Amino acid sequence: MILTVTLNTALDITYRTAALTPHATNRVAEVSERPGGKGINVARVLAALGHESVVTGFVGGRTGDALRELLAAEGPGGQPAHAAVSDAPVTDALVPIAGTTRRTIAVVDETTGDTTQLNEPGPTVTPAEWAAFLTSYEGLAARADAVALCGSLPPGIHVGAYAELVRLARAAGRPVLLDTSGEPLRRGIAARPDLVKPNADELAQLTGSREPLRATRDARRRGGRSVVASLGAAGLLAATPDGSWRAAPPTAVRGNPTGAGDSAVAGLLSGLVERLPWPERLARAVALSAATVLAPAAGEFDREAYADLLPRVAVTEQSSQPEQESHAPRQHR
Amino acid sequence: MILTVTLNTALDITYRTAALTPHATNRVAEVSERPGGKGINVARVLAALGHESVVTGFVGGRTGDALRELLAAEGPGGQPAHAAVSDAPVTDALVPIAGTTRRTIAVVDETTGDTTQLNEPGPTVTPAEWAAFLTSYEGLAARADAVALCGSLPPGIHVGAYAELVRLARAAGRPVLLDTSGEPLRRGIAARPDLVKPNADELAQLTGSREPLRATRDARRRGGRSVVASLGAAGLLAATPDGSWRAAPPTAVRGNPTGAGDSAVAGLLSGLVERLPWPERLARAVALSAATVLAPAAGEFDREAYADLLPRVAVTEQSSQPEQESHAPRQHR
Repeated sequence: MILTVTLNTALDITYRTAALTPHATNRVAEVSERPGGKGINVARVLAALGHESVVTGFVGGRTGDALRELLAAEGPGGQPAHAAVSDAPVTDALVPIAGTTRRTIAVVDETTGDTTQLNEPGPTVTPAEWAAFLTSYEGLAARADAVALCGSLPPGIHVGAYAELVRLARAAGRPVLLDTSGEPLRRGIAARPDLVKPNADELAQLTGSREPLRATRDARRRGGRSVVASLGAAGLLAATPDGSWRAAPPTAVRGNPTGAGDSAVAGLLSGLVERLPWPERLARAVALSAATVLAPAAGEFDREAYADLLPRVAVTEQSSQPEQESHAPRQHR
Repeated sequence: MILTVTLNTALDITYRTAALTPHATNRVAEVSERPGGKGINVARVLAALGHESVVTGFVGGRTGDALRELLAAEGPGGQPAHAAVSDAPVTDALVPIAGTTRRTIAVVDETTGDTTQLNEPGPTVTPAEWAAFLTSYEGLAARADAVALCGSLPPGIHVGAYAELVRLARAAGRPVLLDTSGEPLRRGIAARPDLVKPNADELAQLTGSREPLRATRDARRRGGRSVVASLGAAGLLAATPDGSWRAAPPTAVRGNPTGAGDSAVAGLLSGLVERLPWPERLARAVALSAATVLAPAAGEFDREAYADLLPRVAVTEQSSQPEQESHAPRQHR
């Protein structure tokens, strides 16, 4: 079982409009809702890959009730319950709170395909609720093959929360992945997680460098045992104890990037639990990520595209001497 | 008791953001919710004017539950329950349906003060639910001093629905006001409501004329016993069996016009029930409308501003020969 933690879960609402006109009244043509937050998205993809997962975090209020109801109705693998798929289950171990789970609203402009996102801040979590979560988390982490800590912190949670959760997972001898940003990432990485997956902006914010290979290796020095940076259409860049690799999709894909990072996390986690060599983990993560961009619904992945892309991801090992390489760019490897 | 009908009720959500950036991710700084839909807004203002009101229409799903809970919590007059006001009660006579009450989202840009509105379409109402509503409506209308039919029709309701409700109110001998647009207005006005309150766009759409006095009188010929057109900052223009008047605020007011039309309806309805002469009804409606634009929260009205504006509204009688006037514009009256 893989445990995913989403402290700031969300009811993800998608509005389809002909075209979003700011400062005017816009009629929404179609409304859809689904359980959201990065860790929940990761669990959905893990289930589709055949990995049993448990989701935890906080949930409360009417939107929290809606989230749990939709999660239960999704059936295995994030598919509607009637779909004939044999995916693994996603188990709800969310911790109830007095506050109300936030909504996120994605307004999809059908003319341009662009999305305008509105994210509510999320409920304030009390110290007693955080303590109840920690007790539950310790029990769940002890039975997990891997733990993923995903997304932003809701109000009320101390900024070192992820560092605390990383330490608890490590104390239980469980591999732990951290996917967050800003100060929670800075503090969390210092607690030595097994894997961090920043995107280019998060990595630059953490290390001060926009040179991905240099920044990725800097992030390792800050405490990440392995660091996999997601570089958008360019794929992934990994710095690990076993070496460094770039993994890129065969062609640039166009579509909705929502959830592509979460799919990459699911690819990396499943590869870790299956003890795949790094190049295979990275190929899986890149193929899943690209297949997510290609899927019509945000955060889903296109299974056919995934099967097609997987063998075509190019994984190339990087020099182990980045500083020299950086100073002598014309040198052939 | 005044009965207000809101067939397409809404949970009105307001998001405050620093600035809304289309096609980007926007953090919402503050979220507030309240019961919405035109008839519910009208009832809230009526209550503040000391008129007991009953709200009906449809309500369903989690958003419907939230709407009812907020309505009950509002206490008399749309004020929080703890406020020391002696307003009349708003009674919930909403009819439950299987569908889910829509949300409307007003995104207020704190930099410019502009609002971007996103309106969900609303639930589909079944024929059985419409039949249940009609039974309830007939009972409520029979005990009402006046009936107001407000806003858009949800999916599933036939386009002649307001005409049907106008006829039922008239059969019960109750004065009925209609405030809607498009085809439901066109059909509804033909059923001869006592009062219709279109805005300039609705009036132009109905009559094909952008000349307000001509269009207002045309709307009377189509079946409205009295027609009061709301002309934004220019105030109101009324064509009635007793004469025609213009009523304008003493100065142009700046602010959020959301709910200004609903406040005007509440002013007209209360004046009708109190049997005020037309000029007094119109002055009240204009003062309430302007005091709503001036209020900091959308759809509320500023009581002090209302008291200050009321004696200063200019009501002027219009010529009874609009066609001649229109053909001889230089002629002095």
